[in-house]
Amino acid sequence: MAIKNAFYAQSGGVTAVINASACGVIETARKHPDQIGKVYAGRNGIIGALREELIDTTEESDDAIRALMHTPGGAFGSCRYKMKNLTENRREYERLVEVFRAHDIGYFFYNGGGDSQDTAFKVSQISEKMGYPITCIGVPKTVDNDLPFTDCCPGFGSVAKYVATSTMEASLDIKSMCESSTKVFILEVMGRHAGWIAASGGMAGKGRGEPPHIILFPEIPFDREAFLARVEQSVKDCGYCVVVASEGAQYEDGRFVADAGGKDAFGHTQLGGVAPSLANMVKQALGYKFHWAVADYLQRSARHIASAVDVEHAYTVGQKAVEMALAGKQAVMPIIVREQSSPYRWHIGEAPLSDVANQEKKMPIHFITDDGFGITEDCREYLQPLIEGEAFPPFENGIPKVAELKHVMAEKKLKTPFEV
Amino acid sequence: MAIKNAFYAQSGGVTAVINASACGVIETARKHPDQIGKVYAGRNGIIGALREELIDTTEESDDAIRALMHTPGGAFGSCRYKMKNLTENRREYERLVEVFRAHDIGYFFYNGGGDSQDTAFKVSQISEKMGYPITCIGVPKTVDNDLPFTDCCPGFGSVAKYVATSTMEASLDIKSMCESSTKVFILEVMGRHAGWIAASGGMAGKGRGEPPHIILFPEIPFDREAFLARVEQSVKDCGYCVVVASEGAQYEDGRFVADAGGKDAFGHTQLGGVAPSLANMVKQALGYKFHWAVADYLQRSARHIASAVDVEHAYTVGQKAVEMALAGKQAVMPIIVREQSSPYRWHIGEAPLSDVANQEKKMPIHFITDDGFGITEDCREYLQPLIEGEAFPPFENGIPKVAELKHVMAEKKLKTPFEV
Repeated sequence: MAIKNAFYAQSGGVTAVINASACGVIETARKHPDQIGKVYAGRNGIIGALREELIDTTEESDDAIRALMHTPGGAFGSCRYKMKNLTENRREYERLVEVFRAHDIGYFFYNGGGDSQDTAFKVSQISEKMGYPITCIGVPKTVDNDLPFTDCCPGFGSVAKYVATSTMEASLDIKSMCESSTKVFILEVMGRHAGWIAASGGMAGKGRGEPPHIILFPEIPFDREAFLARVEQSVKDCGYCVVVASEGAQYEDGRFVADAGGKDAFGHTQLGGVAPSLANMVKQALGYKFHWAVADYLQRSARHIASAVDVEHAYTVGQKAVEMALAGKQAVMPIIVREQSSPYRWHIGEAPLSDVANQEKKMPIHFITDDGFGITEDCREYLQPLIEGEAFPPFENGIPKVAELKHVMAEKKLKTPFEV
Repeated sequence: MAIKNAFYAQSGGVTAVINASACGVIETARKHPDQIGKVYAGRNGIIGALREELIDTTEESDDAIRALMHTPGGAFGSCRYKMKNLTENRREYERLVEVFRAHDIGYFFYNGGGDSQDTAFKVSQISEKMGYPITCIGVPKTVDNDLPFTDCCPGFGSVAKYVATSTMEASLDIKSMCESSTKVFILEVMGRHAGWIAASGGMAGKGRGEPPHIILFPEIPFDREAFLARVEQSVKDCGYCVVVASEGAQYEDGRFVADAGGKDAFGHTQLGGVAPSLANMVKQALGYKFHWAVADYLQRSARHIASAVDVEHAYTVGQKAVEMALAGKQAVMPIIVREQSSPYRWHIGEAPLSDVANQEKKMPIHFITDDGFGITEDCREYLQPLIEGEAFPPFENGIPKVAELKHVMAEKKLKTPFEV
């Protein structure tokens, strides 16, 4: 088998551990110099391939690549870029073939969520439909945990650990203040369409009156009256109320709770969040003093509190993606298969990219309590192993140390630039 | 000298390490059974003394007290309760004397910020003006770092480490997304009147183009045009812009930037934050895609990323407060005295409570760069040692383990309840 170069890229919203997958891909490729030449990393995902902006990872030392294990963000740049079908925009695919051919690329590894796996699947069709042989393997990643087939998505376990930890810590804070000050605390977390991240806030306590007292899922229609009644009850029973709200919480008719319809002083629509909207609601209806937090990017970049299990998942899917490519697989994605929850045992399986793309895995309804405000024991059993273990990064000068890459660009071989 | 019981309480907004001070007080008192009998902890600060709600800490094991070292929040409950002067509300002081006498309390340790030290000072006047001898020692605490005399406040170093770390991590996230998605990220942090916490965001990078590109301090009047110009410049130069904004950022005329004057769908004033206000401003003027986060309680309860130096400060001020009391001091507060920054050396000094109360220490102007958007080398030198060292808590089931206290209440000895 001829030695071919590989293309690896990161796509979609990044996570605390996507670089661990990059590390898995690059370290594993380096173990097979008889089959894989250089690993080129696309600068800003597939955009890097289209623009022929290829980072030559052979210029990075083994230590620098290893440091990706504890570096959040996307070390090579990510993108939000959805490719059209081959029939709709053939020019893009022709360009990819030109770039792949110019750099002798025979392997394509694409690290991302649903949309990104759709891209990976489309690229895999190049072999068949355009006569340029390229092995395409997806590498799963998403904090939203919404990919089908895989038991969980690398990236999710760490955000879950962050949200569980932060909810627990903030709950202790408000518990100490509630007698004479703040009585309601609302934490807004990510998850536009699926409540996995919000659910993980439930791991802060054991349920049964322990905070969080209310979780709001996108899967459960938001009922203002039921919500306010529960807030009031919690304050009466416990002295305070902690709410973890998914950014995707919505009314029965599909309107987002975040979309409070507010206008600023200039008459512009306010770009609000769920947390301030709920806080206003509580203030107007019940008069309680409140605080709210919006974790936003902090939650998905919090490598300092990553789950060790998640880091291992992320590395392994990168490693296995390369091994699958070398085994002659095409258009598949390694997935996490759970064997048992306690003690946690798992192995890597595979799913066809054609089926992965554009499917969203929502919370199963038996993971949500009947009242719609909490998580069940089944859900706890599911989440528990995913947040297990600490994988603290090294620190320098008081903050985490991260990989410092040289980002040496491969020389461009094509005459024409490509506009994306 | 007769054995007397001690009263300890927590007051004001809590921190990630205020319980380490509690640990310092209680462990040190336990070493002096010949002078200090029981340590009673006030339930919810001074309110616990007024209501005769005293937690008997002798019921807590040595291990439970030690676990306070890694437990955020206020383990005995805190309060926001400002006592009037003795002449204005003599009844409150008479009640304190009744409670102290009923429980043979001769030592009073009050753990809090400026307002709380004011309370501690007022209580100290009981000895002189009401003839009940009680030794009063303040124990400093505040995330805002705004107490006078002390080089820094226990609680600040940990929030500074959290904000520096979170800013660094989120900056890597947005850096990877900026080519085709989010270009501006705004993190709102605490500090209504002083910019110390915002300044600590500056420790995420080394300045000189590294994020954060803009810091907004309450001390520097907010200039909309200069801010927007800097955002635009940063996006042009770096591809993205990271802003750390103090919740207290305000215009020249004193209006808070957070007070955007918005109304919700019901015509109610929106209770906004600085971050969404700035995000709207950027969107309207420059059209950039943005994300924003409001750390709120997460920042001051993040014991999982506490600074080891801060934990040590917090413990030591508790310990020294007891030692000062036993040495016959009255109405003083232990303070942190910096000997040198690198390598960091410090010792404990003392300040009179009469001078501590109701003073705020703002950022010195030479800590802020001339353009008003960054921190100087002097500021870095000041902040560096305060964020040094990690003091990770133990974890159990994937989240930090915290102290579990029994909270056994001392039997009430007074016939009459007291309304606060």
